[in-house]
Amino acid sequence: VVEKVNLAREAARMTEFWSQQVVASGNASLFKVARGIGSTNWHRHDDQDEVFLVIEGRITIQMRDRDVDLEPGDLLVIPRGTEHCPIAHEEARFLLVGPEVTSNAAGGKPDWSYTSAP
Amino acid sequence: VVEKVNLAREAARMTEFWSQQVVASGNASLFKVARGIGSTNWHRHDDQDEVFLVIEGRITIQMRDRDVDLEPGDLLVIPRGTEHCPIAHEEARFLLVGPEVTSNAAGGKPDWSYTSAP
Repeated sequence: VVEKVNLAREAARMTEFWSQQVVASGNASLFKVARGIGSTNWHRHDDQDEVFLVIEGRITIQMRDRDVDLEPGDLLVIPRGTEHCPIAHEEARFLLVGPEVTSNAAGGKPDWSYTSAP
Repeated sequence: VVEKVNLAREAARMTEFWSQQVVASGNASLFKVARGIGSTNWHRHDDQDEVFLVIEGRITIQMRDRDVDLEPGDLLVIPRGTEHCPIAHEEARFLLVGPEVTSNAAGGKPDWSYTSAP
């Protein structure tokens, strides 16, 4: 059955920051929602580009040569191999689009684990 | 240079309804914005799934067995081979995500050509 998903609603259900929840797939791409607050470690993905689309809140993607501030409706493609470190001063919710493989970099999480209220 | 794009702003710049404008690419997927009003012809894409994400407005995806009403933030994957006909009673703006190939079906346009004010 062909079912829609509401990205904001799916993101709101998540309890762990900086983890990803697959909500749909098509053309061998996965559509994943996530919530972020604070920042992750600096990291990079050598095997895939990272496509960010902000749903709610604001997030800054820090790269070595520049920062890009994102607000709802902004889409950013971080090319593979590019070091980056997202930082959300307040909570941000976003969509990630990527291939149906797991990135070789587990770096996209902070050292701490922070779980929101359910 | 890694540049963000704002989907609503890119869609607002378009002048032709039911045409697609590529605004970004990543992982061999294209991110395309479009504006729709009224409906297209019934059609299907045999070579690719169609991933719709509504940015502004509302659009109903009619399929042979059901209709799905979409509002901003709703994502729908129309599987390849599924006949569909989108209808927007008021103008809708949306993102499409697909592979870097042109679909074999040109059917996703109405018989008329309707251009908005620039």
